[in-house]
Amino acid sequence: MRWGDGFIAVDWGTTNRRGYRIDADGRMSDEFEDGKGILSVGQGGFDLAVQELRERLGDLPLLMAGMVGSNRGWVEAPYVPCPAGLPELAARLKWIEPERVAIVPGVAYDAGDAADVMRGEEVQILGAFGEGMIGADALICHPGTHNKWIRLEDGRITSFRTIMTGELFNLLREHSILADLLVQPAQIDEAFDAGVRRGLSDDGLTAELFSVRARVLLGKARREDAASYTSGLLIGTDLRTALKSAAGGEIVVMGRPELTKLFAAGLSIAGRDVRQVDGEEAFLGGVKHLAELIQ
Amino acid sequence: MRWGDGFIAVDWGTTNRRGYRIDADGRMSDEFEDGKGILSVGQGGFDLAVQELRERLGDLPLLMAGMVGSNRGWVEAPYVPCPAGLPELAARLKWIEPERVAIVPGVAYDAGDAADVMRGEEVQILGAFGEGMIGADALICHPGTHNKWIRLEDGRITSFRTIMTGELFNLLREHSILADLLVQPAQIDEAFDAGVRRGLSDDGLTAELFSVRARVLLGKARREDAASYTSGLLIGTDLRTALKSAAGGEIVVMGRPELTKLFAAGLSIAGRDVRQVDGEEAFLGGVKHLAELIQ
Repeated sequence: MRWGDGFIAVDWGTTNRRGYRIDADGRMSDEFEDGKGILSVGQGGFDLAVQELRERLGDLPLLMAGMVGSNRGWVEAPYVPCPAGLPELAARLKWIEPERVAIVPGVAYDAGDAADVMRGEEVQILGAFGEGMIGADALICHPGTHNKWIRLEDGRITSFRTIMTGELFNLLREHSILADLLVQPAQIDEAFDAGVRRGLSDDGLTAELFSVRARVLLGKARREDAASYTSGLLIGTDLRTALKSAAGGEIVVMGRPELTKLFAAGLSIAGRDVRQVDGEEAFLGGVKHLAELIQ
Repeated sequence: MRWGDGFIAVDWGTTNRRGYRIDADGRMSDEFEDGKGILSVGQGGFDLAVQELRERLGDLPLLMAGMVGSNRGWVEAPYVPCPAGLPELAARLKWIEPERVAIVPGVAYDAGDAADVMRGEEVQILGAFGEGMIGADALICHPGTHNKWIRLEDGRITSFRTIMTGELFNLLREHSILADLLVQPAQIDEAFDAGVRRGLSDDGLTAELFSVRARVLLGKARREDAASYTSGLLIGTDLRTALKSAAGGEIVVMGRPELTKLFAAGLSIAGRDVRQVDGEEAFLGGVKHLAELIQ
């Protein structure tokens, strides 16, 4: 690795950032998380925000990934087109300070009618492959605000599709007519199961959502089941859309465990084999491999 | 009509109210609209809010419809089950002050797995029938925050289904990652047409929504087309869900003209015959017929 004293890796998203100190041997020796996502830092605040990172984790080179490289972030790191593997990302790092501060580019998929973009998930996916946590060919579900379904072929991301499941659930919970029903956290229970099955069937999501409220008003469903049912309904709808074009075989669900467990439960209800991969471990594998590839 | 000096009719919704003075001959002679929906009035404020109405429109009996009769309104007016016609609504008015102040009940549909409720639209639909604006048997699309698809048989509402199309568009426009793209009002143009066609096909709405942003980022779509395209996409998805179980024949689109024209355009793209009915005219017909039926 070029960075003989180690480096700082940052997964810098819209509302949060997670920083890690990676030692010369590739192991993570310190970490922290806070709410200084790119929206709260603002365009002029990144120098100070990086100074803070170094005060906490050491005066080391920085490798950043996520929305920090978007047009609302620090410096825009243009998307790498599919197929995209670790070598393509390493070759297209956006250097802010030569040899010392870089942003990992996102990945774009542009084919015919389809158009999609990601920033941050690519490090996890390719890191999991680099570490041998998943094979070179895989179908990956990466839940989050914007759930991504990613096709990995020969160790490269060849296509992907984003489904707005997480954001839609948040919008409904915070701002919709269902808000007062969606107070509890979603659980994997009978109501969740019923929601997944309803979503997997071909009924219209936007019609089913209103019936969540109507069922409670008419005494056909319990108020306390609404969050789990709605979460299941959205996840089932997501799976129906994604699985339509998916062949058989295992599906990898990667990301934060509190989300991957919900999607894994939904996939099991859909009769699919599923394996969960911790997104943070995969991210750490990804930045280690990228640092090794820096010329 | 029992109310020989006329009466005041109020369409009292969540965020707005519209008041009308109806003369003894059934004709509307004065009206106004303001932002005093039930949420801004609050439980204790209805006496004062009604006093204001009478100061503007005359010291007359009051017939109210809409969310004013919900569990967040003034007094709850229990739902009338389907099949529901004008006689059923008139028989189940919720009287707050005998012979002088009444709320029209909403309608509930409860059959097997289906559960749905409406408050306010029933007056328009049955009013349009009572006035001969539509026949005794019709399929009606009533767009609004919550779009309703209503089956009218023999002059009675026999079933209906709510699709959250309007609310979803508002959530996306006000709070989502698409907010900065959905600034313009939706127009009936090529982008709208493309969105409707995409929604009518079987693609997943929650995936297509994210691609609105990705297409602009990748230069495949114009930023200024995003609102019309997204409106078309949501309306096309709504129509696909609703038309799956709809026989052929004309569809009536009833409500506010700025919304009915969008749904009428979508239905034309879907190859259906469509007729628009002004919701306000239908409402005035409904309250006139209800007042005549008061015993």
